[in-house]
Amino acid sequence: MIRTLDQMVEKVLSFHRKHRIAVAWAQDANTIGAIHKAASYGLIDAILIGQQAEIKNICRRAGIDYSLFSLVDSPDESEAASLAIRMTRSGDADIAMKGLVGTDKFLKAVLDKKDGLMIPGAVLSYVCAVQIPLYHKLLFITDTAVIPVPSLEQKIAMANYALEMARRFGIRKPRIALVSATEKPSRHFISNSDYSVMMKMAREGHFAECLMDGPLDIFLACDKKSVEIKRVETPVNGEADILLFPSLESSNPFYKGLMLFAGGELAGLIRGTEKPVIVMSRSESEMSKFYCIALACLMA
Amino acid sequence: MIRTLDQMVEKVLSFHRKHRIAVAWAQDANTIGAIHKAASYGLIDAILIGQQAEIKNICRRAGIDYSLFSLVDSPDESEAASLAIRMTRSGDADIAMKGLVGTDKFLKAVLDKKDGLMIPGAVLSYVCAVQIPLYHKLLFITDTAVIPVPSLEQKIAMANYALEMARRFGIRKPRIALVSATEKPSRHFISNSDYSVMMKMAREGHFAECLMDGPLDIFLACDKKSVEIKRVETPVNGEADILLFPSLESSNPFYKGLMLFAGGELAGLIRGTEKPVIVMSRSESEMSKFYCIALACLMA
Repeated sequence: MIRTLDQMVEKVLSFHRKHRIAVAWAQDANTIGAIHKAASYGLIDAILIGQQAEIKNICRRAGIDYSLFSLVDSPDESEAASLAIRMTRSGDADIAMKGLVGTDKFLKAVLDKKDGLMIPGAVLSYVCAVQIPLYHKLLFITDTAVIPVPSLEQKIAMANYALEMARRFGIRKPRIALVSATEKPSRHFISNSDYSVMMKMAREGHFAECLMDGPLDIFLACDKKSVEIKRVETPVNGEADILLFPSLESSNPFYKGLMLFAGGELAGLIRGTEKPVIVMSRSESEMSKFYCIALACLMA
Repeated sequence: MIRTLDQMVEKVLSFHRKHRIAVAWAQDANTIGAIHKAASYGLIDAILIGQQAEIKNICRRAGIDYSLFSLVDSPDESEAASLAIRMTRSGDADIAMKGLVGTDKFLKAVLDKKDGLMIPGAVLSYVCAVQIPLYHKLLFITDTAVIPVPSLEQKIAMANYALEMARRFGIRKPRIALVSATEKPSRHFISNSDYSVMMKMAREGHFAECLMDGPLDIFLACDKKSVEIKRVETPVNGEADILLFPSLESSNPFYKGLMLFAGGELAGLIRGTEKPVIVMSRSESEMSKFYCIALACLMA
């Protein structure tokens, strides 16, 4: 079982296989820095798509040897995006990654019915593995980036994606908490109705092997002491592997609080695609960017 | 300016005035422990309302001298609650506090039109001051406990309560962030429409002196570096004093994450009442319970 993000990197290295990453609109110091680090570790080979002259300049300024990368010239943002996606779709690359191109334009290429990367009919969502010094294992959190207010169908997809990722980390029976403000179902929260349907589905075996419970608050999900004090019976039992949140306004402040104030690092990935797709926020730390690339390799 | 919860305690002690607290259904080891600590510090005198024999037993077991407290015998949970509230209303006590009585029954007594403690027409809400080692000052968060999904009117009340509390802590021009998942207004979040009305009201001077901005994510609200990287112009500028959240499913996981994983302590208080009313969760830490009592004294 993988308990830290560095253990995840070791796991990927144990495959002894370099994954090829196609980076869309790559002339961004931040992105190239992360790519260079992953390449140095022997995780990846990179194909940098974008304005060649600019890419070379950035490499020179950062003291990075650009001959380590394949460079593909592209004069246009949207063209670079669709080229990265098409290369990944065709198998010329294993992983697609957003560079300086706007998220909207990049996701448009991912979602393109004909040339995109979506699994037909799949929900586009996002899962991240968060590492915090004061928790004894990784915490998989969904959805912190894509779906504003997930429907029941989307919540089910989110649960499945998170369970699939947790299993790749060697967790046989992930504990999944459906997060709310309290463990008492409330008529005020739409999420709570969806949660009760999901609990029924879990009892009937519609999910992969797991221990699901909700609604739960964060204390009951992640703190054994709170479970004892409150004397609540829950299979999650303060040892959640996965936190499924009711909305982006709920998940996003939570994970950002952990990043800022709890020494958190993360590895996150888009889900619902045929091949891994990396979309990173510019405000993530250097380490988190590196971990995102490693996670894509693990899930490829 | 008060920057820590211990500085808040010092401030209250500098008043050289003991506040009288009426505790409803007080036969609870946890509650009595917190009350005893506050009494030992010279912050309060306590009136313990409930089953006298049981209260004495708990004190004996904890090695607490119950003659330090006034004891008022009451055989019934609801009666104890309404007695505590009536004593506070009449001036026999300065502060009302929930003991072992259920939150619903206690709040029913607080909300009672004839004998309760509400300011006529006021919104019942909750503000807490959170202290975390990795932030350079206190963070006032609202509403982490009472209003599930606040309306615009309730959000305005929440902002006013938090601003009032921040001023009591000596913050002249509090920076208040209206929290969402990103700084870009989204049609998916109802909160964002309310925020735009509040921003207009702030520009027109409807709030006490403050620097308000929203929607903002947690990075832009609380991290100067993120503001620089993203080059967003915001008066909050990564130095928020107050975080106003769009819902309980958003605020509650956030603050609980900080408590569990970021070494957080808090002091929280019900707002909208004529006199301070303390409602503490059993899963709060010993220190947080003590700080809640001290905060009630500061706001009395």
